[in-house]
Amino acid sequence: MNSSRPLRIGAVLFENFEILDFFGPLEMFALLKEDAVITVIAEKAGVVQSSGGPSAHADMAMAAAHSFDVLLIPGGIGTRKEMLNEPFMRELVRLAETSALVMTVCTGSYLLAKTGLLDGRKATTNKKVFRMVADAVPAVDWISHARWVEDGKYLTSSGISAGIDLSLAVIGKRFSKERALEIADHAEYEWHQDSSWDPFADINGL
Amino acid sequence: MNSSRPLRIGAVLFENFEILDFFGPLEMFALLKEDAVITVIAEKAGVVQSSGGPSAHADMAMAAAHSFDVLLIPGGIGTRKEMLNEPFMRELVRLAETSALVMTVCTGSYLLAKTGLLDGRKATTNKKVFRMVADAVPAVDWISHARWVEDGKYLTSSGISAGIDLSLAVIGKRFSKERALEIADHAEYEWHQDSSWDPFADINGL
Repeated sequence: MNSSRPLRIGAVLFENFEILDFFGPLEMFALLKEDAVITVIAEKAGVVQSSGGPSAHADMAMAAAHSFDVLLIPGGIGTRKEMLNEPFMRELVRLAETSALVMTVCTGSYLLAKTGLLDGRKATTNKKVFRMVADAVPAVDWISHARWVEDGKYLTSSGISAGIDLSLAVIGKRFSKERALEIADHAEYEWHQDSSWDPFADINGL
Repeated sequence: MNSSRPLRIGAVLFENFEILDFFGPLEMFALLKEDAVITVIAEKAGVVQSSGGPSAHADMAMAAAHSFDVLLIPGGIGTRKEMLNEPFMRELVRLAETSALVMTVCTGSYLLAKTGLLDGRKATTNKKVFRMVADAVPAVDWISHARWVEDGKYLTSSGISAGIDLSLAVIGKRFSKERALEIADHAEYEWHQDSSWDPFADINGL
């Protein structure tokens, strides 16, 4: 990590995103303080409603954004509509291809898989809909038991709260494990550091 | 819990709120689906920026809001400014007094303590600033080792991610423990069900 400039995080929003997929990782990145700059992007700048009701606000249109150090793609029921939205998917591919790391949470993995960028790669997703996603995009090597999976620059995580653990792993990678642990302690969060920890795969019969 | 109507959650926003204090509990309440309605309120409706950068959106002005089943008060560095903001504090007192349960996260406990409503009650807050808060509002019986503390209708939690555990406890109280566990599993979140679990008190020398 070049410490002379902050980590640039691009966080993608769309209607009916899942709240914690998005804001869990952003809390951890925000605790990097001056070492991170978060830009929230969506098809259009402005208010974007989550599936749960509360709304967030996109600072910038995706088309106006360029390569990031980390591109964050959350999941949620809204992924089903966006994967059929060609202008959105075109911008998502451009930003994924030009960003240094791409991280997905929950069905954000399904959305990214639909671009074809995960073909032939290992990845994971939400355990409740794992079989449906694996059947829908068979070209991906889906790993059922994993909190998160790394394959090159693509880091995919399990359901909802798993994104918090992956974001700390990203911080560990780009800064140091000590910095990630310091942030977890600051957030009073018990970080699952083992990417193979996954009791939820068993709960869901995987 | 009267199952004939949804749980009405009022979630208070202010500038420089802490991201996960707010959105962690809201994710868990949102997973109640049709059994919850979340209203995001702030001094004025509109865009409200977090301390970490990303913005949320308040649906309604606090002055237009009435009693809730659960009033959620997050923390963050912005609490320091709001505790000196008389119109905001007046509305906060009115909503806390008229709501059935009041839950705070992190320094949201400090903000609520400043109203006087916690005087003589047991409460907890963020472990990094615990001594400062305890010194600032000595009329409260501050508990150092606690993930969260219940005293009557006031439920106060520890730093940042602790609000997630408390929100699940609130769901357990108002619905059932089984429902709370089902939601934690859905979120692939390992719920700390023991309110006395608090490794972060030790880490911070409390």
